This record gives sequence, structure tokens and C-alpha cells, in this order.
Amino acid sequence: MTFHSMWAELLPVGRSSASGGYRRFAWTGADADCRDWFRAQAEARGLTYEVDRNGNQWAWLGDPAEGDAVVTGSHLDSVPDGGAFDGPLGVVSSFAALDELRARHVKFTRPVAIVNFGDEEGARFGLACVGSRLAAGQLTVEQAHRLTDADGITLPQAMERAGYDPDTIGPDPERLSRIGAFVELHVEQGRALDLSGDRVGIASAIWPHGRWRFDFRGEANHAGTTRLVDRRDPMLSYAETVLAARREAQLAGAVATFGKISVEPNGVNAIPSLVRGWLDSRAADQATLDTVVTGVEKAAREYAEAHGVELDVVRESFTPVVEFEHALRDELARILGRDKHAGLTVPVLGTGAGHDAGILSGTVPTAMLFVRNPTGVSHSPAEYAAEDDCVAGVTALADVLEGLACR
Amino acid sequence: MTFHSMWAELLPVGRSSASGGYRRFAWTGADADCRDWFRAQAEARGLTYEVDRNGNQWAWLGDPAEGDAVVTGSHLDSVPDGGAFDGPLGVVSSFAALDELRARHVKFTRPVAIVNFGDEEGARFGLACVGSRLAAGQLTVEQAHRLTDADGITLPQAMERAGYDPDTIGPDPERLSRIGAFVELHVEQGRALDLSGDRVGIASAIWPHGRWRFDFRGEANHAGTTRLVDRRDPMLSYAETVLAARREAQLAGAVATFGKISVEPNGVNAIPSLVRGWLDSRAADQATLDTVVTGVEKAAREYAEAHGVELDVVRESFTPVVEFEHALRDELARILGRDKHAGLTVPVLGTGAGHDAGILSGTVPTAMLFVRNPTGVSHSPAEYAAEDDCVAGVTALADVLEGLACR
Repeated sequence: MTFHSMWAELLPVGRSSASGGYRRFAWTGADADCRDWFRAQAEARGLTYEVDRNGNQWAWLGDPAEGDAVVTGSHLDSVPDGGAFDGPLGVVSSFAALDELRARHVKFTRPVAIVNFGDEEGARFGLACVGSRLAAGQLTVEQAHRLTDADGITLPQAMERAGYDPDTIGPDPERLSRIGAFVELHVEQGRALDLSGDRVGIASAIWPHGRWRFDFRGEANHAGTTRLVDRRDPMLSYAETVLAARREAQLAGAVATFGKISVEPNGVNAIPSLVRGWLDSRAADQATLDTVVTGVEKAAREYAEAHGVELDVVRESFTPVVEFEHALRDELARILGRDKHAGLTVPVLGTGAGHDAGILSGTVPTAMLFVRNPTGVSHSPAEYAAEDDCVAGVTALADVLEGLACR
Repeated sequence: MTFHSMWAELLPVGRSSASGGYRRFAWTGADADCRDWFRAQAEARGLTYEVDRNGNQWAWLGDPAEGDAVVTGSHLDSVPDGGAFDGPLGVVSSFAALDELRARHVKFTRPVAIVNFGDEEGARFGLACVGSRLAAGQLTVEQAHRLTDADGITLPQAMERAGYDPDTIGPDPERLSRIGAFVELHVEQGRALDLSGDRVGIASAIWPHGRWRFDFRGEANHAGTTRLVDRRDPMLSYAETVLAARREAQLAGAVATFGKISVEPNGVNAIPSLVRGWLDSRAADQATLDTVVTGVEKAAREYAEAHGVELDVVRESFTPVVEFEHALRDELARILGRDKHAGLTVPVLGTGAGHDAGILSGTVPTAMLFVRNPTGVSHSPAEYAAEDDCVAGVTALADVLEGLACR
């Protein structure tokens, strides 16, 4: 199967006709369809298919027990109304790169595997990279059991309903110890490659980032009859905090976003009792991120107090800065520098997005390749990469796999 | 049945154990339970029970065909997580007042009826007073057919599933023409009676009020990788507009509230593509209300333009000022002024809340009684009225019915 035909097969899965975006949430029907597709691709190529204890899917060429494997892959789930490329481009490119290597008649000297990590986006349970976090021991079984979706279904219940055994989840050091190198290909989620005029780049680091939940609690009351002076309206302090987050991020050269909100009772004629907003913030270094979040929280507390509103701030997740392994990164640069595009520099860039590669980098040597995104748009139905650039990504990934696994 | 025992019977119906508030939305199971209760109360008193073509329930003492009837009642549905009193206090007090009149052995000279208007709060379909609006011809059948709840169920579908015939809905002038006077008792949704030290008051007017939907459309994008300068984030213009609404209302001596919001895709790590906020605003007169809403919309357009965001503003509903009929209002004041509390002035007060009485006032002579609310809190689980005050309300309503229907 060509890259093009694999891509066309996945395109309709979990796509909302209303938004044109994807709703491939962990352990739903759309997710199951993606997983079936992965399994079929593995079996069509005669690869050894397995699902690990945390629900991640693997397709092996060669014997995993040999160790020092070269693994590539990404994820197939999506954010709410996400684009087609974030995740699937890495998985589809992995299968296509393997096909290209077989067409090159290379001889593999190390086992190779393609992986689909479960629940990377965290759209359903609010925590990103659940599959890789569990495997790497960065999410405990107890914490995983407390993850609950908007309908009150827990992660174990969701896994069970999808036909997976939730009793086995937990750290998987034995499986990770087989991996000598993990390379994740991903669509760029910014415009650095577009601005530099390159099709493919190599990741240097992932910015530290986190999610903070701001619960503003006021008093529900009638919107028509309650005097302004008698109100304890949490929507006002929320609104002020949204603007404070933008100001703090701008001052610090960071990013900060309130993209998710939940309001109770959420009635047109009712002053809310609760406005819950989630802050996502990231910066190039830890100190800058601390400055932004501390500033937003301080401002929010002042606004809340001025409106007679109570405020709780909970850090729901946090990932420190991830520097990808320098030796592997330099090897990728060397491999890509000597291919037919020799003479072109392969740019090395940082990113504000989290990835399974970032989670794994604490345990195994890890690297990332980015494919040009002409608009920089991601997490949106408008997310796009040109097919020429995707094919260049496949070639680059094949070169990397050949350089790492065939010498 | 005493007021107390009727009240106790209704208390658990549709109450959320999570919030302590009520979720009695039109044509749901909780609404059906309330309707069964109404029917049982009517039948236990030997009243003639009927449901009109718009799903409003009636309990008649005497022959409706005689005309010039005195009607009292209110509604039994609730806002999301509303209180126990808004609506039910009027219906329960109506039955209790009828019991008191029978105990007084009065002789009725006019037919009397108790009514439960359907879907007063508009919690499910977004439009308030659907039952009375349809009857009074203030909502066309075509408009009613377009009303849709959050799950995409239309009003006719919801009525049908609840066992009511939606094909008959529409103006009901014949039924309304039988009514000589409509008196609605309601818990006060403010603190005027508490401040004046009175248990019961009479309504003068309902402020003009309306609902406007603000759709801020930006561009969904990745919250971690999109530079601030590249963003078209509609949450920012929404936040600025929330604060502008408060300022405009404060300047004008009006009220303005953003209590309901809907965000797409509503993901923690996604800049929203759409933030939809609903403005509820009310003022003592039309000119003031126009000033507030025009000011908010003008500010919102400036904010949206500054962020590269598109804005649509739609007026979803509007009710002009309602002056209750002066003759009926003065008669109520005379009746209540000569009862055993003679010497006490019965205060006459305006309100920012809409009511079925306001809808009917264009068609039939209409009046309202308010019962003291010690905190002013309404549309909240904390909504409260002391039982002594409720009993005083029943006595006042009985006095009014006796004065109107027994001479």
C-alpha cells in the first residue's frame, strides 16, 4: 500500500461531518476503527502484532527479544475536532518507510517496530500521553484509575468496554528496555520549516508545559433580579484571568491559553455558581513558565477576592523541559545530511507541543522528525501538510531507519 | 392536604443530589412527575382536569364556558439547578388558597381555575414561557417547530415522547377569552420586601428584557505551538465583552449577565474556533436597555476586530416592558389593604424577571403577588422563603380570589 492509499483509508475514520475535524477519542468506536486499521497494516506486512499491557499497539519486524530495537511510530487519536495529520502522519509514514526499505532490499541488523501509543491527546480523560506515561512509570496505576471522562466513566471502565484488560496496566520497563532508539515523525505545529523553506526538520527540545485548572466559585442567582452589588459572579473573575494570562505570556515571550471551560448551571438567565477554566502554558525554559503561571494565579486571586468569589487552582499535569538525546539527534542530522539532498542543512528546532517521544526520552534514546506545515495550524480541521512534503518525510524516516537499523 | 404536606410531596421531584438544585426541564421525566402531581391534586379536590392544546394543565372549579373566570397558578419546571420555590410556590399556594376558601365556606360567583403553564423557564429549548407564548399567539407554530434542545431533539419530538400531541399546538384565543383575571403568586427574586419588612407585595411592572447570542469565531489551533501574534483566539474577545457588559450595566443602572457559554472544540490544548456567549440584559425602561445592549455590542465588535475574530450577534428573544393592568392591581391593593393586616401598606414593586403573567397581560387582565425572599437569591439551590411568609402568601391569595370570585 502506498502512503497515499493508506492515508485515504484512514481519512474518513472518526471525522465529524459537522466540523470536518476528527473525534478519535481514546477507547471509543473511532479509536477502535483506527486500531483495527493498525492491526490490518501490521498483518498485511507479515509483522508480529501485539498489544502491550497499557493498550499500546506494536508491529514487529524481527525478534523483540534481541533488544536494541529501532522503533518508530506515533498515535492515532485526536483532540476534539482535530486535524488529520497530528499523530496519523507519523504512523502512516512509519509503515510507508518500512515499505520503502523493503523496496531498497536493505538487510536489517536490528529489530524494527512500529508503535501506536494509546490516548496521546488526552481529549477524553484530560491527561495527555496516557499510554506512554503508564509504560514509562510516569503515571501510577492509582492515578490512572482516578482518570474519569465527562460522562463519569473511568479509564479502566473505558478500556474494558473496548475489549481490553485494564487489570494489567502499569509500568512496562521490560518492554521499554528492548528499545535502542525511538524516532517519532510528526507534522510541525508551527511555521519554522515554512519560514526556513525546509520540508523536514529535527527536534531539539520540547518546551516545559503544564495544565492548570482554575475553579472560580461564586453564587448562582437570577440574572434578571439580582442587583450588581449583590452578585458573586465567577464569570467576571474568569474573564479578567483570561486577559491576564495573555498579558503575562506576552511579557514573558511564552504562550498561555484558556481553551476549555465548564460553567454551572450554564443557563442564560442564571448567574453562574461555578466557572472552571483550564490554563495551558508553555515556555522555552522552566523559570519563564513559572513566572507566567505565578503571575496569572496572583492576578486571578485578586480578581476573585474583589468579586467575593472563591478560587482553587490545581496543577493537573506538568512536563519539564525535554532535551532530546544529543548523540541520536546528531546521528539523524548526519544521516539526513548525506542523502541525495546533501548540502541542504536539516534545521533543528524546539517545539511547544508534548509528544510520546518526550515521555519516553527519560527512559530510551529518543528523537523526532518534523514535516513542514505551511500554515502552522494544528489541532484544527484546517491542519494541513502538502503530500510532497509528507513523501519527503517518509523518505527521511526511511533514511533514518536504514542508517540506524541496517548497519 | 395542607400547604406543608403538598410542599413536602413535591420537594424530592427532579432534585439533583449532586447540586441540591432542581432539573425539572420541559417534557422530561421530572416534568412528567410534576404534571402527575398536578393532576392528582386536581382530582383529589374534584376539580375538572384538562390539558390544553399547548400542554398547559388546568384544574377547574365551575364551568369554564361561563366565562369571566378568575385563574391563578404558575409553573412547575425549573432552570438548571434551580430552587424549590420559583414556580412551584405559586402552584402549591393556588391549591392551598382554594382549600382555604372552601374552609371559609365562600360562595363562588365566577368560575375559578388553577393553571400549570408548561416550559416557563426555557431551560431545555432556550426560549422562556413557551406554553403561555403559544397560547397567546406570541410564538408561532413555525417558530415552535424550530426549537431544539442540546441533543438535537425538537419541541414537537419532545412533546410526543412525553405522550402529548404536538400537532395541536398554536394560538388558543377561545380558551384565553374565558379568563376575566389571572393572578400569579411568585417568590420574590430580589430583596425589596425584605428591605421594606413586608411578607407580600403586588407587582407593578416587568422590566423589558432580552437574550442576545454573541458568536465569536476565530481559528482553532495548537495551544502550545501557535505564536501569540499568529492567533485568532475568540476567548479573548469574549472575555473583554463579559467585562464590557458589566461596565455598561453599571453605568446605566441596569443588569447584564453572561451566564451561558459554549466553546468549540473546548480542548485544554486547543485555541477555540468558536466561543458562543449569551447576554441576558434588563432595565427599568426600553431606552436604558437599548443603551446597554448597543454599548456591549459596539465594544464586542471592536474587540473582535482587534483579534481577527468574526462576530455575529443574534437577538434570540425580547420582551418589552409589561405594565400590569392598573385597575386589577388597585383592586388587589384594596382587597389586601382591608384584611386583618389593615393599616399595613402592601408594597407595589417592579421586577426584572419574566413570567407567564407578563405574557398573558397583553390578552387578559393580569396581576402578580410576590412573597418575601430573605436573601433575594433565586435560580439557585439556595433559593428560600420562610414557611410563615409562604402561609401569608396563601392567605393573601385566598383573600384576592375571594374578593374577585365571590362577590
